[in-house]
Amino acid sequence: MTNQTYPKNAWYVAAMSEEIGLEKPLGRKVCGERIAFYRPKPNEVAAVLDFCPHRGAALSLGYVEDGLLVCGYHGLKIGEDGKTKAMPLQRVQGFPCMKAYAVEELYGFIWVWPGDQSQADASLIPRLEWAESDDWAYGGGLYHIKCDYRLMIDNLMDLTHETYVHASSIGQKEIDESPVSTQSEGDEVITSRYMENIMAPPFWQAALRANGLADDVPVDRWQRCRFTPPSNVMIDVGVAHAGKGGYDAPKEFKASSIVVDFITPENDDTMWYFWGMARNFKADDEALTDSIREGQGGIFQEDLEVLEYQQVNLKAFPDYDLLKLNIDAGGVQSRRIIERLIRTEQDSSKLSKNGIVSDLKVEERPLQTISF
Amino acid sequence: MTNQTYPKNAWYVAAMSEEIGLEKPLGRKVCGERIAFYRPKPNEVAAVLDFCPHRGAALSLGYVEDGLLVCGYHGLKIGEDGKTKAMPLQRVQGFPCMKAYAVEELYGFIWVWPGDQSQADASLIPRLEWAESDDWAYGGGLYHIKCDYRLMIDNLMDLTHETYVHASSIGQKEIDESPVSTQSEGDEVITSRYMENIMAPPFWQAALRANGLADDVPVDRWQRCRFTPPSNVMIDVGVAHAGKGGYDAPKEFKASSIVVDFITPENDDTMWYFWGMARNFKADDEALTDSIREGQGGIFQEDLEVLEYQQVNLKAFPDYDLLKLNIDAGGVQSRRIIERLIRTEQDSSKLSKNGIVSDLKVEERPLQTISF
Amino acid sequence: MTNQTYPKNAWYVAAMSEEIGLEKPLGRKVCGERIAFYRPKPNEVAAVLDFCPHRGAALSLGYVEDGLLVCGYHGLKIGEDGKTKAMPLQRVQGFPCMKAYAVEELYGFIWVWPGDQSQADASLIPRLEWAESDDWAYGGGLYHIKCDYRLMIDNLMDLTHETYVHASSIGQKEIDESPVSTQSEGDEVITSRYMENIMAPPFWQAALRANGLADDVPVDRWQRCRFTPPSNVMIDVGVAHAGKGGYDAPKEFKASSIVVDFITPENDDTMWYFWGMARNFKADDEALTDSIREGQGGIFQEDLEVLEYQQVNLKAFPDYDLLKLNIDAGGVQSRRIIERLIRTEQDSSKLSKNGIVSDLKVEERPLQTISF
Repeated sequence: MTNQTYPKNAWYVAAMSEEIGLEKPLGRKVCGERIAFYRPKPNEVAAVLDFCPHRGAALSLGYVEDGLLVCGYHGLKIGEDGKTKAMPLQRVQGFPCMKAYAVEELYGFIWVWPGDQSQADASLIPRLEWAESDDWAYGGGLYHIKCDYRLMIDNLMDLTHETYVHASSIGQKEIDESPVSTQSEGDEVITSRYMENIMAPPFWQAALRANGLADDVPVDRWQRCRFTPPSNVMIDVGVAHAGKGGYDAPKEFKASSIVVDFITPENDDTMWYFWGMARNFKADDEALTDSIREGQGGIFQEDLEVLEYQQVNLKAFPDYDLLKLNIDAGGVQSRRIIERLIRTEQDSSKLSKNGIVSDLKVEERPLQTISF
Repeated sequence: MTNQTYPKNAWYVAAMSEEIGLEKPLGRKVCGERIAFYRPKPNEVAAVLDFCPHRGAALSLGYVEDGLLVCGYHGLKIGEDGKTKAMPLQRVQGFPCMKAYAVEELYGFIWVWPGDQSQADASLIPRLEWAESDDWAYGGGLYHIKCDYRLMIDNLMDLTHETYVHASSIGQKEIDESPVSTQSEGDEVITSRYMENIMAPPFWQAALRANGLADDVPVDRWQRCRFTPPSNVMIDVGVAHAGKGGYDAPKEFKASSIVVDFITPENDDTMWYFWGMARNFKADDEALTDSIREGQGGIFQEDLEVLEYQQVNLKAFPDYDLLKLNIDAGGVQSRRIIERLIRTEQDSSKLSKNGIVSDLKVEERPLQTISF
Repeated sequence: MTNQTYPKNAWYVAAMSEEIGLEKPLGRKVCGERIAFYRPKPNEVAAVLDFCPHRGAALSLGYVEDGLLVCGYHGLKIGEDGKTKAMPLQRVQGFPCMKAYAVEELYGFIWVWPGDQSQADASLIPRLEWAESDDWAYGGGLYHIKCDYRLMIDNLMDLTHETYVHASSIGQKEIDESPVSTQSEGDEVITSRYMENIMAPPFWQAALRANGLADDVPVDRWQRCRFTPPSNVMIDVGVAHAGKGGYDAPKEFKASSIVVDFITPENDDTMWYFWGMARNFKADDEALTDSIREGQGGIFQEDLEVLEYQQVNLKAFPDYDLLKLNIDAGGVQSRRIIERLIRTEQDSSKLSKNGIVSDLKVEERPLQTISF
C-alpha cells in the first residue's frame, strides 16, 4: 500500500452520463477497479465489479433486463447490490455477493466511490453551481492518457504551459511574464495569475466576439486554478476590456468561463481526463457550445503528447528530484493534500477489523454449488 | 512443471492441410514449441524445431528443395529427422541434431505430437468417421484467441451460452430452460441437452430448408457435446420434426451435423481454435458448405470477445473460486481428465533417465565447428 | 554492467544530417541514452539529455530559439553544455546541469559519444575517404530493427546470405560456392570473397550498364567486408569484366562501390541501421543515386524479417551455442573486438573516482528551488 498513488475513498467522475445506454452497460476501470456501470431504470445508475460470479466473464459485455444486469455468457442476473438474483435453472441464494459500488449521477456525470463502500456519502460530491443554473452552458469530452494522473494536476495547476503548448490558441507571452500566487486553505489550493492591459489571444478574441464585445482592444486577463480533492481542477478564466475591473468587472465588459477538469486514475500510470468548459454567456447557443468544445478538444489534445513523454521520462529516471519552482506551487501543494488523504486512508484501513482487504468482497461462500 | 496447463504428450491439430504449401513452410507455435512444418514431398509433411542450428534463424522463413527444408539465411538444409544434410562449403556431419516432431496428415488436418517423441504413436490420433465417408461434407476455419485453451473447452462443453452469445443465430430461450446431463466414461465426457417440441432458431430453420424439410413446424432439438483428450470437442447437434424420435429420428425427418472443435494451446494464455461443421446431408453441395462455414465463422467469432475478456478477468483475480454449477459439469470433468494426463506426464518424465529436459534436443555436439 | 552489449565510449552515427531541422530538434535513443539533438546555429549540432531539469518533459518536443533549446512545456531554455540559461521569471543559476553529449556533424551524419564525455575525441571519428571526394556519390537511408545490433554485424560480415535473402537482386549461387577468408588486424576485421568468371546478378548488370559496360559477359566479382569498432561495416563490392584484374582492374573495366553500414544500438535488443552506398562512377547523376538507393532500400529490407525472427529465437533459447563456421569468422572476430572494448570500458569505469555512475550527471544541486 506504500506506493499507492491515489486515494480510493473519494468520489471520482467515471463517465459522462451519455456513455451509459439504457440496455448497454459500460465497462471502465477506475482506481484499479474494473467496474460495470449500467442503468437499472432509465434515470438510475448502478455499478458492480465487472466480473460474473459464475465464471468470471465481463458483465459489461452483457445487457440490462428488468433492472438487472444480465451476464452475456450464461445469463446470470446480478442486482445493483452485487447479489445474483436469478440464473436459468439455478438456485442462486448461495452465490457469492460481488462488490457493488456507490455511484451517483449528477451534473451530467457518473460519480463512483471505488474504495471502502461503508464510507461513501453522496453529500461529499462537490457542488457545481454552474451545473445547477440555466445561465450556464457546458460542453466537454473525454481523453484517455497514458500518464500518472498527478502529472495532469501539475499541468492544470500551472498554466504557464499555455504559452508553449498552446501557443496558437490560448497561449501568449504575457502569461509566463506574469507572476503567479498560490494559496491553500484546508483541502483547496488556488493558483492565480492576472495579466493587465494585454491583447487577447485568438481563443479569447473569439469569445469576446461571441459575447458581442470588441476583440481588438486591450484586455485584463485572469486565470484562477482551483484544486479540490481527489483530483478536480476548476479554472476561472476570462478577459475583460482593460480597466473595467478584470475578474470583478461587470458582465457586459467581459467574457469568462470555467475550465472544468475531472481527472480520474485508471491505474497508477494511466488516466481518464474529463475536460470541458462552462460559460455563463449565450447559454442557449448550442452551436457555440459545439464550436467551443471542438476548439477546446483540439487544445487539450496538445497536452497529451507532452504528458505521455513526460511519464516515460520519469519512469526512466525515477530518482531524479524534479524542481519545485514558484510556478509549480499549485501542483506541489495539491499533491501534498493527496498524500495526506492517502495516509489517512491507509491508517483507517489498518484500524479496520478486516485486515486483509480483498478486491472481491464475497459476503458468503456459495452454498449451492454442486460437486461432481 | 507444476503449473503446466496442457499435456504435451498428445496429438494436437497444428494446421489445416492447405496452410502448408509445396515450397513454403509454415511456422507455428504449439504447446510452447516453435515448429516449422513443411512438405518434403507433395503428400508428406514434416515438422522440426523452427530454429536453424547454424545461427538460430527461423527455418519457416526458408523454402523446400529436394525434400529438405532450406534455411533462408545461409542455405543450411535440414531433413525431417532434424539433422543437417548439407550446407554450402561445409561438412555437416557434426552439426547438432535439432528436435523433430512426429507429425501426421489426416482428415485434412496436420497433427503434431509436441512432447516426448518416443511416445508418439500415430494410432492414437482420434478416428473421425465423418471424415472418412463420402456421405459427409466438412467446412471450417481457424481463429487465434488470446485465452487459456481450457476456457474454450468450458465454453463448448456448456452450450447454455448459445442463448446469450449467439442469440440471433443458434441461441434460443429453450436452451437454458432445459437441464443438461453429464457423464464421463474413461477419458471421455459427454454433456447432453434435449429440447422437445420447440421452434427451430434461424440457423436450424435454414438447415431444415437446405434439407428439404418444413422449417415452420415444431422440432425436437439436441446437443451432445463430447470431449476427448487432449482438447477435442465434437458436438452432435440437430433438429428433427417433433415426435419423430429426435436424435434417433430417421434421416428424412431431421437436419443434423457435428460441430468440430480442435483446441490447440499455443502458450499458456493463447490458443489456436480449429472450428468447423461436418454434415451428412447434401454433401456434394459446395455452395452450401461455404455458406455454412461463413455463418459458423460469424457465430464463433462472437465467442472471441467474451473469452478474451474472461481471460483478463481471471488473470486479475487468480484466487477467485469460480462456481461449478451443473451446467459447468462438462468443463469441470474435462479439466479433471486433462489434469490427470498432465500428472501422468510429469511422473513419467521424472522417471526418465534424462532428468533435465531441454527444449533443444541436441543429439550430439558439433564436431566440425571451427575455432578462430 | 556484466551483460553490457555495446561499448558506450565510442562514436556512433545517431542520425542523418537532414533529420535535424533548424528549429525542430530530434529525440533519439542511442546506447540506452535518451538524447535531444538540435542545431544551435544552422551549421552546428548539439546534444543533451532529452529530459528537462524542471519537470522531466522531453526537450525534443520543444524548439530552438537564439541557439538554445526551449522546453515546449514551460519555456526553460537549455544550452549545449546542459546548463539552463533562462526560464521566464526564474533565476536559473542553481538549476542542475544535465548531461550533454559530444556530438559532431561529419560526412552528412551526426556522430555522438554516448558514454564518458571526458574521453570523447573528435579525431577518433573514422575517416571516410569516399565522403571527402567529389569523385564519389552517396545515397542511403535508415531502418529501425528489433534485434541486437550484433546480429546485423554478423549479417554483414558474412555475405553468404545474399544467395538466399537477396536471391533476386545481388544474390547468386556462386557466392556460397566460393570460400571466404577472414583476417583481423588490430581492431579491424576483413572478410573477403572472390568469384571469378561468373555472370553478374541483376543489380550488378544494371551497375555495369550505368557505367557504360557490357552486362552480358563474364565478370570477376568481389566482396570485401571491413569491420571497424564500434560497429561500422564498409564493404567493397564490385564486378570487373573477367580477366581484367578483378578488384585491381582499371576503372574502365569495372563497376564498384562501397556498401556503407553504420549500426547503432538503441537498446540491448533494438537498433538503428544507417545503410547506404557510395560509388565512384557517375557521381553527378542524382537520378542514379536515387535509383540505387531505392534498390538498396528494398534489398536491405529483406534482412529485417530474418533478423527480427532470429532475435526472437535467440531470446527463446538463450543457452544454445550457435555454430561458428568459417563463414561466421567475420562476425565472430568482430564480436571479440567489441567484447574487449566493453571490458576495457568497464575496467576504466571501476578505476574512476565516481564509483556510482548516474545517467543524470547533475553537476550541482539546485540552489534556487523554492520550498513551500
